[in-house]
Parts: sequence; structure tokens; C-alpha cells
Amino acid sequence: MTLKVSDIGEKELINYILSKSNHIIPDDCAISKFSNFDLISTCDMLIQSKHFPKNMSYFQMGFKAVTVNVSDLASMGASPLGFLLAIGLPKDLEYDSFKEIISGVLNACKYYNIPLIGGDTNESSEIIICGTALGLNDKPLMKDTYNDGDLICLSGSIGLAALGFNLDGDNIYTDKALNPKARLKEGIIIKKAGATSSTDITDGLASELYGMKKDDFGFMIYEDKLEISDEFKKIASNLNLDYLDLVLHVGEDFELVFTMDKNISLDIDYIVIGEVNKSGKVEITLSNGDVKEMDKRGYNHYVS
Amino acid sequence: MTLKVSDIGEKELINYILSKSNHIIPDDCAISKFSNFDLISTCDMLIQSKHFPKNMSYFQMGFKAVTVNVSDLASMGASPLGFLLAIGLPKDLEYDSFKEIISGVLNACKYYNIPLIGGDTNESSEIIICGTALGLNDKPLMKDTYNDGDLICLSGSIGLAALGFNLDGDNIYTDKALNPKARLKEGIIIKKAGATSSTDITDGLASELYGMKKDDFGFMIYEDKLEISDEFKKIASNLNLDYLDLVLHVGEDFELVFTMDKNISLDIDYIVIGEVNKSGKVEITLSNGDVKEMDKRGYNHYVS
Repeated sequence: MTLKVSDIGEKELINYILSKSNHIIPDDCAISKFSNFDLISTCDMLIQSKHFPKNMSYFQMGFKAVTVNVSDLASMGASPLGFLLAIGLPKDLEYDSFKEIISGVLNACKYYNIPLIGGDTNESSEIIICGTALGLNDKPLMKDTYNDGDLICLSGSIGLAALGFNLDGDNIYTDKALNPKARLKEGIIIKKAGATSSTDITDGLASELYGMKKDDFGFMIYEDKLEISDEFKKIASNLNLDYLDLVLHVGEDFELVFTMDKNISLDIDYIVIGEVNKSGKVEITLSNGDVKEMDKRGYNHYVS
Repeated sequence: MTLKVSDIGEKELINYILSKSNHIIPDDCAISKFSNFDLISTCDMLIQSKHFPKNMSYFQMGFKAVTVNVSDLASMGASPLGFLLAIGLPKDLEYDSFKEIISGVLNACKYYNIPLIGGDTNESSEIIICGTALGLNDKPLMKDTYNDGDLICLSGSIGLAALGFNLDGDNIYTDKALNPKARLKEGIIIKKAGATSSTDITDGLASELYGMKKDDFGFMIYEDKLEISDEFKKIASNLNLDYLDLVLHVGEDFELVFTMDKNISLDIDYIVIGEVNKSGKVEITLSNGDVKEMDKRGYNHYVS
């Protein structure tokens, strides 16, 4: 049988590219050093049928395309420098809808204080928005530079977007699903305070923790520290969804998961959810006291 | 009737975005100034059904995606810093074809000496390759900073790719259509020598000249200086194609059109095709001596 890209999966496609190039660092952004600067760059492509919920407005699509890219800058604690927008549009898209997308992009650029500096337009069969975010940094915050005993923290609650994708109407869950925000300011504060590593949660906490894991090190997180509300559990149960699956394996909240020494405290809202250890495993202590190894599963393109 | 983006056309969509943003310069690349650096950035999205000829190999698709972006760096005389690759792939694409695309990208990166530093993969209905090229420059070469009396020059013959899109087999025309190269080294030499402006020809010479035109200035080019071979005219005629239309209104050669003072000579192959004047018009002197205003028409997405 001939192998298809769907047999390989997104992570392995990326691993193939990484194996062929000496210049890609396996982190949230690329880092180009010149003079005494670190130029930070990242690009993410969003495709209507894959990345935009059915009830998302054109404005929200444009805003999200900036957010997903700025979120990568945030994870490294970078300051924004510029945003490039390459956009593919179906020829029968209404001109007013195009204007709403652009309004979403520009409002997001204003919100994050990152100027829209250039781009490209094309005809495509569905809406495609490919953004590139550029930033500057000194000593970018990497995802695997933590130490044994460091605290594992989140910049906010997770799982809300995951639940929101299954709901209608206006509530905190659909708001998080349709209007996600990148933690850009928080990323800069976290880095300045001396955090030891950071990444943004796009494919789910579990997947990101496995992405952060280095040999011999492990992570223990605690269900009771994830601040999962009774309401959240009840709504998930009514929808026949596993609340812990929503919290651990979906993502799209664009919160930061970061590590820092126990003696640091931060001037932002955050929650401590566990600690770095030398177990070699990514584990969770459930509310009933059971400890289990976390499933690697996260959002994966090419698997449907 | 509700206006669609196809009623508006690519140039007007771009003009709409330009009218809403203060930070975009209407040139080949974005320029971000910081410290004493000019960071040059550009992104171009290529979509299989629109940008890749039917007989183009996967390797050539990957190579071209780098070329179109590097060509924008070339037009400003920038030195390459890094390349980001966002790619959308159909799930039933063969894994070997994916590898060929990546091989094309990496070979192009090697050819232009621009490291592949990051990217993104996604599932899409057809192949989409969105590249971002980053470069460095001091005093980037703009497209409209020419003076009255400057020579108008080309870095090489144009129209070859346009003819090649209509041919099969191995010849100089299909080679230019399938294996276009960006004039990166030439761009740097042109800038250093003191050229007054430059842009790359992607949508056709006519369209680029109108893009370069500023108030009160004009251009006169000469058909006899375009070095159109008898063979070219004969093949076009056999295909019922207007040879001058191929040369002026299609593009995709990725040659540079640039201007410079009459007293400069360059250490690269180039041809002088006309001069800058104050006519306020973009004109061509045909071989029969007739002078006519050039049609603005160039390659336009959303018009099919």
C-alpha cells in the first residue's frame, strides 16, 4: 500500500522536515541571531473548514489568525515587531465579508500592538489565512529549559474553548472558543520574572507537556489544581463528553503553560498545577488519588 | 446585487487593506526599522490549481514557493536571513510526494543560501504553500525612487515562462516556466552599484511598470530592445498567441526590472529596454515605429 500523509500524521511530517534541516529549532518560534538581536518569527496557516468553528464570524476569523501567531511570540516572551497576512479567498465571497476579516485582523493587530506590515491575496476554494508574526527578544524563553522541582503553572483556565466548540449562545465557553486571546503581555512578564520555560497551549495540555519533556525529566500535575468548575463538569456530562478529555486533549485556549522556581511569584493571575520531577513520565494525580500516565493524544490534523 | 471579491479584483482588495493600515508600504517587501537595521519581510501564498502548471513536479512546486518569496527580497537588494514554510496538504497526498515538495524547498533554500527556520503543516483540499522570506538590508531599493532620464533595465529576457506555460517537453521556455530562479545575487549587485529603483516581474512587465509609476513620471520602452527572438515569435504564432502579450502581460519570469543613471554600468548580464521620462504615461515604441500606451493588464487573481 502506498503511504499517504494521513497515514503519517502531522507530528511525523514535522519530524521529517526537522530531520532534513539543520536550522529549525523544535520550539514555538524560529530564532535568528544577528548583531546582538534575536529575531523571533513564526507562521501559522488557518483553513476555514479545519480551524474556524461553524458559528465563527468573519471578524473573529481575522482576529484568531493574528492570535494564533502572536500566541507563539507570547510563549517565548517576545515583543511584537510586525505581522504579515497572506490570505486566500473564494471568488464568490462577499466583499463585505472580506472587509470583516480585514477588520478582525486589524483590530487584533491593534489589541496586540503589532503592526500589519505586509501580505498577499489569492483566490482559493475556501478561506485560508496564513499569518507570520515577527518579534524581538533577548534570551527567548524556550520550552525545555526547566529544572527539577520547578512549579508547572498556567496563565489561566483551560478547557473552556474545548467545551465552547460544543455549545451555542453567549457564555464564557463559546466566548473563549470564538474570541481567544494570546497571552502576549503575560509572556513578557513571565520571562522577565525568571520563568524557566514556557509554551502556548494550542493542541491540548497533554500534547504540550509531551512537547516540553526532555530525557529523564517528568511532570506531575494534579486534577484538583486545574480549577475545573462543577458547572463545567455538569455541562460536559450533559453533552456526554469527558470533562478531563476536554481539559487535557483539545487546546485552543491559547493559555501559556510555564515553569518557574518555587520561590518566584508573579504579578499576573496564574495557577500552579504541578511540578517538574525526574520520573521520566507525564502524569496526573486524579481527584480520587489515582496516579495515571497521561495520554499523548492532542489535536492532530490528518486524522479525522 | 451583492458585491463579491471577484467583482473587486486583487489589486483593489490590496488597496482596501492599504487604505486601512498605516504601516504597510506599497512595495515588494515590508521594512521594519529597529536599532540601525532594516528587517525585510515578505510572504506569498501559492495554491496548486492557481500557481502550479499541470506538468510541474512536486520538487518544482517546493522550489518555486521559495523562489517567489526570495524574488521579493531580490527586488530590494536584501540579503537573506531565513525562510518560514506553512504548508497545506490533502490527506490523500502520497508521503513520497510530500518528501519531494520538502526536497524542493530545501534545495531552493540551499541555492539561495537562506536557511529554513520554521513552519507549520495543515490539512487542506489542495496543495497550499505559504512562504515567508526574511532578509536584512541597509537602504532597501524601492520601486519608485527613480529620476527623470534614468535607464530602464531588465536582469534577463522576459516572456519565456509565459510561452513555456503553453508548451510541453524540455526547452528553454518550459524550463523557465517550471524552474524559475530569483535574481537574488543580481539584486544585491544592482543595489550596490547605485540603481535608483527595482521590482521583480511576477505579473508582467506592464503591470509592474504601472506599479512603479509615480505622478508626473512616465516610462518609454522599445520593442526592439526586448530581444524577442524570431523563434519566440514563430512558436507564439503557431499557438495563435500574441508574442507581445506574452512578453508584457504574463510575468512569472522573476526577472528584475530596475532603473539607473545612464553613467552606471553593471557587472552582470542585463539589457536596457527604455528610459524614465516625464510623459506621465507608460508607453512602448513598437518595431514599426508606432508609439502606444501600454495596457495595464497583468495577471489578476479572481478573474477567470
